[in-house]
Amino acid sequence: MRAKPSLDWLLVLVPVSVVLELSGGPDLAIFLTSAAAILPLAGLIGRSTEQLALHTGPRIGGLINATFGNVTELIIAVFLILEDKTEIVKASLTGSILGNLLLVLGVSFLTGGIRHKEQHYNAHAASVHSTSLVLAVTGLLMPALFALGSQGETVVQREILSGTVAAVLIGLYVAALAFTLVTHEHLFRTPDEDEAPAWSRRRAIVMLLIATGLVALESEFLVASLEPALADIGLSEFFVGLILIPIVGNAAEHSSAVLFALRNKVDVTLEIAIGSSTQIALFVAPALVFISLAVGHPMDFVFSTFEVAAVALSTVLVFMISSDGRSNWLEGAQLMGAYVIMAISFFFVEHL
Amino acid sequence: MRAKPSLDWLLVLVPVSVVLELSGGPDLAIFLTSAAAILPLAGLIGRSTEQLALHTGPRIGGLINATFGNVTELIIAVFLILEDKTEIVKASLTGSILGNLLLVLGVSFLTGGIRHKEQHYNAHAASVHSTSLVLAVTGLLMPALFALGSQGETVVQREILSGTVAAVLIGLYVAALAFTLVTHEHLFRTPDEDEAPAWSRRRAIVMLLIATGLVALESEFLVASLEPALADIGLSEFFVGLILIPIVGNAAEHSSAVLFALRNKVDVTLEIAIGSSTQIALFVAPALVFISLAVGHPMDFVFSTFEVAAVALSTVLVFMISSDGRSNWLEGAQLMGAYVIMAISFFFVEHL
Amino acid sequence: MRAKPSLDWLLVLVPVSVVLELSGGPDLAIFLTSAAAILPLAGLIGRSTEQLALHTGPRIGGLINATFGNVTELIIAVFLILEDKTEIVKASLTGSILGNLLLVLGVSFLTGGIRHKEQHYNAHAASVHSTSLVLAVTGLLMPALFALGSQGETVVQREILSGTVAAVLIGLYVAALAFTLVTHEHLFRTPDEDEAPAWSRRRAIVMLLIATGLVALESEFLVASLEPALADIGLSEFFVGLILIPIVGNAAEHSSAVLFALRNKVDVTLEIAIGSSTQIALFVAPALVFISLAVGHPMDFVFSTFEVAAVALSTVLVFMISSDGRSNWLEGAQLMGAYVIMAISFFFVEHL
Repeated sequence: MRAKPSLDWLLVLVPVSVVLELSGGPDLAIFLTSAAAILPLAGLIGRSTEQLALHTGPRIGGLINATFGNVTELIIAVFLILEDKTEIVKASLTGSILGNLLLVLGVSFLTGGIRHKEQHYNAHAASVHSTSLVLAVTGLLMPALFALGSQGETVVQREILSGTVAAVLIGLYVAALAFTLVTHEHLFRTPDEDEAPAWSRRRAIVMLLIATGLVALESEFLVASLEPALADIGLSEFFVGLILIPIVGNAAEHSSAVLFALRNKVDVTLEIAIGSSTQIALFVAPALVFISLAVGHPMDFVFSTFEVAAVALSTVLVFMISSDGRSNWLEGAQLMGAYVIMAISFFFVEHL
Repeated sequence: MRAKPSLDWLLVLVPVSVVLELSGGPDLAIFLTSAAAILPLAGLIGRSTEQLALHTGPRIGGLINATFGNVTELIIAVFLILEDKTEIVKASLTGSILGNLLLVLGVSFLTGGIRHKEQHYNAHAASVHSTSLVLAVTGLLMPALFALGSQGETVVQREILSGTVAAVLIGLYVAALAFTLVTHEHLFRTPDEDEAPAWSRRRAIVMLLIATGLVALESEFLVASLEPALADIGLSEFFVGLILIPIVGNAAEHSSAVLFALRNKVDVTLEIAIGSSTQIALFVAPALVFISLAVGHPMDFVFSTFEVAAVALSTVLVFMISSDGRSNWLEGAQLMGAYVIMAISFFFVEHL
Repeated sequence: MRAKPSLDWLLVLVPVSVVLELSGGPDLAIFLTSAAAILPLAGLIGRSTEQLALHTGPRIGGLINATFGNVTELIIAVFLILEDKTEIVKASLTGSILGNLLLVLGVSFLTGGIRHKEQHYNAHAASVHSTSLVLAVTGLLMPALFALGSQGETVVQREILSGTVAAVLIGLYVAALAFTLVTHEHLFRTPDEDEAPAWSRRRAIVMLLIATGLVALESEFLVASLEPALADIGLSEFFVGLILIPIVGNAAEHSSAVLFALRNKVDVTLEIAIGSSTQIALFVAPALVFISLAVGHPMDFVFSTFEVAAVALSTVLVFMISSDGRSNWLEGAQLMGAYVIMAISFFFVEHL
């Protein structure tokens, strides 16, 4: 998948951001360069994962992809948690789900649909993902209702509830992996092109480690400069979490998904866009509940009504659009329209 | 479609209502006669539009139908806006969506299903409409949540948010039109009977203009007499907006939809009932946001929880019932049952 | 269906509970023995109903099954109403719907799916049930919104609204019965094995009457000992209503449903699990509104947000999982996961 060379030149921003940070440069400049530097690094993680997967065969490859797919989001989130910015973490998780389901899938369906009139994909896979998303909505809604309905709940209750819900979601994520990769793998097999790996196994692993390390470095810069930089440009933290961070974290996926749609391989597009969302909802977000406990900055699993409603609506929309195993440009435009409506609402919410 | 001559005799109420208005007759009498006079006029608009469409060919015809289909509702709404009765406008828009989705479609499926056991229609068209409705729900829900969650929002924020959401919905409406009438028109083609127009093009245009003008006249009478008339009969404005006005505005569509279902042409029934709802949700309601600004009586796009919930439930129900491309009497009864449950709830809400 | 002999030995608890009650034994002991005694009695009601149905032919048999299927829940609910514990009644109705939709169906799909890889069933029947459930959600949501939105509503309004909604739901339940048993019975016919009844008609009727009478007796013990027993063990009434009572009331259905899934007769499983839920939602719960009025302890039809949300989510999940007419172990695990998330949320809610 030599697909997005266009972003590689941004790698030059890695040293630039380091110099800025060391020389005590302006926060806004650090914020922007580190955000932009993450784009090609996330792409590099994606490419090394794919190369590694070509060496390991489809099953282990699927597992590696699933595990490293959202590692950028995970790293940024951990740094945010260490700064006790749990509300931004939740916003960025929600925004990542929405961005993948509506924006990435929408642009892919729209551009792919303009070129190919009608595109077809495995409705089975779409259906497993949709059901996983409804479970995620259940896991988001019940604790939110619990928190809304009760002023008197104790912190311990909130933590136990959050931990249990998170454990169930992770269990269901593992179950869905076992289903798609092991017990019912035949339903999800896509015509394979038997691509030869372009990188050696060693090179893939080394690149993966380097890119992940650099993402961690840039994420630290990004998070540290976030607050002062936002004060400069007048955007609220909530909006940045919901819209900007997810776009940075998912830019690589975004361009891959669109390219595959243009090449009429919508199955891969779906796996990237919806698969990434279910992974964040059922694995990354719940894992952060436990990670946050381990690092001593506990984050509960109670999201705002706004966030729950947005994820629920997106889930319904994706289910309706994808359940027939076909896509076209109108469906892409509709997904993008929903994203715009949500983004503009979020924009004002957080100016309050 | 010489289908509903039964209502034409009501045209006699046009002069009656004019005389009552000029002679300063009782408000209740003016209210009732103008409401009843709108029924045959709306039917006349429908008939002239269809005749005109037969002259222009299916594409332009589809566009004309789509544009004039809800002109009655639009005119009544504009007069209500001029009187600053924006809550009734919103109630009547919601009521029109619910009435078409649940009552019109329900009665059609029930009567058609009693005669024909199982009826079939184009599941493609139903699916495009359902997705459009979910977008409408998104457009209704996000601003409502915004308004619920924030006491401190400014009027300007509310207007910008309303305007953006309205613009997105209109854009998606135009996109859906382009999809069904131009780029993917082959998916929606119904077996054509090549009906010859009964009216000349000129006659159709003249009738359309006259009927529209008279609807405007009667709507003015209706709106002006609304408040004093309601005081007489003890119904709340909210209930009148949600239930009575939509029934008046949609009576013509209602009878056509049922007749087509009886003749086993459920595709036309669906186009009338669901198509009309999506048009109100994605075009008429958003257009009124801009029209209201233009006439200096701004109406925002923030609907009540009740209204959003009712539209969302109706959308889910219609999606589930129509996604298989088949209908039967039970589905009709179920839609009607949902309408009754909502109507009775609305009835009490507004007595408060 | 000689399927669950394992529970019959619990019948010994019937005399035990009577002795405890007469001798003024400890409340907790009475509570536990009467709860446990209901398990085999409910199974006995199920078996006699089936035997009776074999004598009457499928149509009347279907009606008998539908009527007596939830008689245990109904009896417990009536005794609770007589004690004015209407909130527990509502919780137990909600819990019964959730338990059947998520737990019973989940365990069945999981165990059946482990043995049979993929199981098939009549998607028509699943679709009728799903639509009925959405109507139930409509009937639950609208009055709940009405109650939320208005402090000033009178008791009379609440009663009229509850009565009307209940009447509509019962009407739709009867309509769905007429559809599946009479007008469109051919769509729902399952390959019949022409089983010979093991009991005579007289024996079936006598057993049905005895078992129902004993259930009534034990229910009285159960309800009377509920409050003091709960004080002993520290569980809230709400949790007992939502989780424990439904498990007691549905144990017989539960084991039957699983057995049929293991034997690859998922159509019967679905009829038991989803059919039982729709019956509670559209028939038992609305009937209790009228029964409660008749016995002078009126119960309205206003459920809590939590309850409405849980039923709505379960409905969406079951619709998505069952609309393709196929099931597998993952879908079972997903349903069970949703149940656990809801149960843990309920557990904390009622500790408040």
